[in-house]
Amino acid sequence: MLRSCVSLLRTPGVLCVPLGGASPLARDSWPLRSYSSEVAHRDHSLPNPSWSKDMRLIFDQFMKKSEDGSWKRLPSYKFISSKRLEEVKIFFPDSKPVKEEPLSQARLFPRSLEEGLGFEYAMFHNQVENRTVCILQGGPYLQGIPGFLHGGAIATMIDSTVGMCAVLTGGAVMTANLNINFRRLICKTGS
Amino acid sequence: MLRSCVSLLRTPGVLCVPLGGASPLARDSWPLRSYSSEVAHRDHSLPNPSWSKDMRLIFDQFMKKSEDGSWKRLPSYKFISSKRLEEVKIFFPDSKPVKEEPLSQARLFPRSLEEGLGFEYAMFHNQVENRTVCILQGGPYLQGIPGFLHGGAIATMIDSTVGMCAVLTGGAVMTANLNINFRRLICKTGS
Repeated sequence: MLRSCVSLLRTPGVLCVPLGGASPLARDSWPLRSYSSEVAHRDHSLPNPSWSKDMRLIFDQFMKKSEDGSWKRLPSYKFISSKRLEEVKIFFPDSKPVKEEPLSQARLFPRSLEEGLGFEYAMFHNQVENRTVCILQGGPYLQGIPGFLHGGAIATMIDSTVGMCAVLTGGAVMTANLNINFRRLICKTGS
Repeated sequence: MLRSCVSLLRTPGVLCVPLGGASPLARDSWPLRSYSSEVAHRDHSLPNPSWSKDMRLIFDQFMKKSEDGSWKRLPSYKFISSKRLEEVKIFFPDSKPVKEEPLSQARLFPRSLEEGLGFEYAMFHNQVENRTVCILQGGPYLQGIPGFLHGGAIATMIDSTVGMCAVLTGGAVMTANLNINFRRLICKTGS
């Protein structure tokens, strides 16, 4: 059971979601390394022209922290590896998609919108502290009330970050419960 | 505080989310009537060629129920009215977007993806029973694990449905807590 909340809003328009515990598990390798080598697509967790000055500032701060190896930037792709389907069978052995489709037609939901319009985000993980941080800039296509992010968009990024932290700690995971207390509105940025 | 769960999966690939209570409030008018007249755009809660047979079947069932006026289909648009900004001030009088932008650049998050790729959904409301039902077909751009919907996509539609039910019951609302128990995986459909 995963429980989280929107816990830190450092600058207007940029949400910073730090998640994790204090009981790291020893790991020999990071699962995303093998994932990145399998899928030859652009890594979207790097700065692009749509990023605001605030987004870039926080990104650079975490890149600075990554220089000594304590933090690591996690790559992120639009396309998803069919190998992850194996993880599903651990939890739901009888589940299968309605129909198979070429990998090129599948998109990871948080990367499904074009640059600057949807989720612009990057995640960093601290292996020793067992913590994952996501910095997010929400574009104009993520709105509920004009000017502010839809609650579902916030939930999407929290679910992604919690899930990533759990995967990096213990391998295959599935969210059973998502409990979010929305503390304040989050502005969209970008255009 | 809103609490909900994925409570009914009628057919493969189509999620049916019934939400509501048993204490309807009397209303003279439906807020979406005025909203639909303000925004001259296509109503996306009607069938399109990407809809599966199952999705269309359930839609037709609710349209049948709507013939006597007990249920009503709720229209839905990509573009959002700036008038909704007024509702924000009720809850957060000091909040405002980072910058103003033309209405044409803003998209309602659940309608931000192109036809057949993302959220294909329709909502129906029963005013007497104070219940809202959402039927959803998730496209290939909503995936987490290949073939299945991302938890954030499910949360988005639950938040939208709960919010719509609350708006139709009591006017301006804001989600304070979203607590979802994921009972099973939901297949994506469409291509």
